[in-house]
Amino acid sequence: MAKSKLLQQLQLELGERSYPILIGENLLHDKGFWHKLVTSKQVMIISNTVVAPLYLSGLQAIFADRQCDIVILEDGEQYKNQDSLQTIYDTLVNNGHHRDTTLIALGGGVVGDICGFAASTYQRGVAFVQVPTSLLAQVDASVGGKTAINHPRAKNMIGSFYQPRAVVIDVTTLQSLPEREFSAGFAEIIKYGMLAGGSCLQLIQDILSTKIQSEMDNKQLSQLILVCCQIKADFVAADEREEGQRALLNLGHTVGHALESYTHYQRWLHGEAVAIGMYCAALISQEVTGFTQQEVDLLEQLLIQAGLPHKIPVSIDLHQLQILMGSDKKIKNNTLRFILLRKIGDCYIDSTVTNTSLQKALKCAVEGE
Amino acid sequence: MAKSKLLQQLQLELGERSYPILIGENLLHDKGFWHKLVTSKQVMIISNTVVAPLYLSGLQAIFADRQCDIVILEDGEQYKNQDSLQTIYDTLVNNGHHRDTTLIALGGGVVGDICGFAASTYQRGVAFVQVPTSLLAQVDASVGGKTAINHPRAKNMIGSFYQPRAVVIDVTTLQSLPEREFSAGFAEIIKYGMLAGGSCLQLIQDILSTKIQSEMDNKQLSQLILVCCQIKADFVAADEREEGQRALLNLGHTVGHALESYTHYQRWLHGEAVAIGMYCAALISQEVTGFTQQEVDLLEQLLIQAGLPHKIPVSIDLHQLQILMGSDKKIKNNTLRFILLRKIGDCYIDSTVTNTSLQKALKCAVEGE
Repeated sequence: MAKSKLLQQLQLELGERSYPILIGENLLHDKGFWHKLVTSKQVMIISNTVVAPLYLSGLQAIFADRQCDIVILEDGEQYKNQDSLQTIYDTLVNNGHHRDTTLIALGGGVVGDICGFAASTYQRGVAFVQVPTSLLAQVDASVGGKTAINHPRAKNMIGSFYQPRAVVIDVTTLQSLPEREFSAGFAEIIKYGMLAGGSCLQLIQDILSTKIQSEMDNKQLSQLILVCCQIKADFVAADEREEGQRALLNLGHTVGHALESYTHYQRWLHGEAVAIGMYCAALISQEVTGFTQQEVDLLEQLLIQAGLPHKIPVSIDLHQLQILMGSDKKIKNNTLRFILLRKIGDCYIDSTVTNTSLQKALKCAVEGE
Repeated sequence: MAKSKLLQQLQLELGERSYPILIGENLLHDKGFWHKLVTSKQVMIISNTVVAPLYLSGLQAIFADRQCDIVILEDGEQYKNQDSLQTIYDTLVNNGHHRDTTLIALGGGVVGDICGFAASTYQRGVAFVQVPTSLLAQVDASVGGKTAINHPRAKNMIGSFYQPRAVVIDVTTLQSLPEREFSAGFAEIIKYGMLAGGSCLQLIQDILSTKIQSEMDNKQLSQLILVCCQIKADFVAADEREEGQRALLNLGHTVGHALESYTHYQRWLHGEAVAIGMYCAALISQEVTGFTQQEVDLLEQLLIQAGLPHKIPVSIDLHQLQILMGSDKKIKNNTLRFILLRKIGDCYIDSTVTNTSLQKALKCAVEGE
C-alpha cells in the first residue's frame, strides 16, 4: 500500500471551535493518523454510492476496533434532502449512537453538507470530520461549517453553522474523480482567484494554462488546495455566521443557485452553475462598477480553460430565473444583494442593482449573444 | 383592555447572544412593547390549537403593520415531530420569509422547542422570541436555548442549542391554564427547589402549603418564575452546551424521559413524568449517597401538594423501562449517568450507579411499595 504523507496543513482559527485542515496523499489508508484523530468509541461513516466502492472499505477497516456503522446515500444534489437526513437519524438512533459518537463525511459536497447537518442536530450536536473526495468539496464545501439540506423549493434552505473537528483532504482521491467534476471544482478555485487576485490568481493561471488533470501532481494540487482553503479559512475566521464579509464567498452563487433550482439540480453540477453565475456577476459588475471588458475576458478564458460553461443556454427563461433569485438567502429587508467586482481582487456586496442592469447583463450572458 | 405591566426582568448573559427574560402581566396586548422588541419586516407566529384561540388574534393585530404569517400546530408532545417541522419550513418558504424574519413561539414547551429548532435551521438560523404560555415553559423550557423535535424512538433526539432574542412571560396567560398543566409546571419548580435548596425551596414550600392555583396572584407568580429563571439562567450562562454542570438541570429526567417514551408521550404530561423521575432519583440517591428518608419525604410531600404523581404505576415493566433509559442523551462512553442528590441543594452527576441499586430504587418507587 502506498505510503501516506501529510503535505500541507493549516488551522481554521475559531477559538474553542478551531480545527485543522490536513492535506496529504494516501491519508485514507493511514491507521495511525485516524486513530489519533478519532478517539470516540462509536463512529458512523456517511458516503454515497459512487465514493463508497472506492474508499469505504479501507476506512471501515481502520475502525474495525470499535462500533462503526455506515450510511450510503444515493449520489447527487437531488438526494440532499429530508429523506436522506432521516435515514441518517434512523441509523444513528437504531444503532444506539450517543452524544460522544463521531460522524465521518466521506464524499463530495452533498455528503459533507448533509452529514454536517445531521451532526449538528443529532442529540443537539455531535462531532464530525469532513473527508472531501471531490475537488470542489476540498477547496470549498468542506471548510467553514456551512451545513444544509435542500427544501423542494430552494437550495440549502434548511441548515446550520456547525464546524467539523477536522477536514482531511486526501488528494489521492482526485485521481478517481471524473473530468467533469474536476472541472466543476475549478469553478470555486477560479472564484478564489477573482476574490483574492494577486499570487492566488497567478497560480491558477499558471496551472490552467499548462496543465490538464492527469498531469497535475499531488504536490501541485495540495499547494493549490492550500491556497484556496487559506483564503476561505480567513473569511470564515473573520465572519463565521456570514453576517458581513463572508457573503463575498458567494460570488457567482446568486445566479448559480437560481440556475440549479430552475433545472431542478439536474442539468449542471454545482460548480458549473457557479461558473455561469460568476460570468453573470462579471457582466453585472461591468454595468454597475468599472469592471473592465479585459477582466471579463480573463474570467471567460479561465472558465473555458477549466472546461467549464459560462453562458446561459437560450432555453432558460430569464424572467423565471429572476423570480427564483428572489428566494436567495442573501436577501436582506426584501432587497436582493449581489456580490460584484470593482476589479479582480476587490469584491463587495451590492444591494442597489437595478432591474434594468440585471436584465441587460443576463441577456448578454445568454448563449449566442 | 387591562393595562400591561412589566413586573420582573433579568438578563441571560451569553456574550453577544445575551437576551432578556421579561416577566409581566398583560404583555401580550402591549403594542408598544412588541414594536420595540420585534423590528423585522416579516414575522411568523407559531402556536397550537389550544393556545391560538386564546391569544393569537391579539398578537396578530399587533403585527398588522407588516407581513405576519401563522402556523397552528396540533396540541401535544406527539406533534413535536418531523411533520410539524416540515409544515413550518413549508410556510416559511412558501411565504418568502428571508433570513431577517422573526419567528414567535406562542405556546407551551412543545411549541417553543419546535419553533426554536425551526428558527435555528431555517436559512441556517433566524431570530425567534419565546412567548411561553404554560407554567412549565415559563420556568424551564423557554429559557436556555435547547430546541428539539422527537424521533419516533426517542424524545428530543433531533435538536440544537440556539438562543432566542428574548423570552416574554405574560403571567396573565396562566389564568387560562388547566389545573393539571399548572401542576405539571410545578414539577420543574420543585426541581429548582431540590437543586438550589435554601430560600428558593422555602418560597416553594410557603406557596404550596398555603395556596391553590386560583389564589396565587400575578406578583407571587412572577416572583416564583423569576427565582426559577434566575437559577436556570445561571446554569446556562456557565455551561451553554451542557458540557458539564448544566446537566444537573436534568434531575428526574432520565427516568422521566423513559416513562414518557414507554407510554408514547400519551399517559403523562412532561412535568408529571419528571415528578415521578425526581422521586426515583431521590430513591436512587438514598441507595448511593447519604440522601435521607426525611429529604425523600419532603420531596414526596411537595409533589403531592402540587397535585403531581410520584410513584411508578404497577403496569410499567421495569426491565423495559431500563432498556429505554439506555437511549438517554446523557450517556457518555456507553455509561448511563444519573443526576443524584447528596442532599437537597447539592446535586451531582453519577456514572457509577449499579444495576442492583437502580433496580432496588425503581422497585421501591412502584405504586403500593
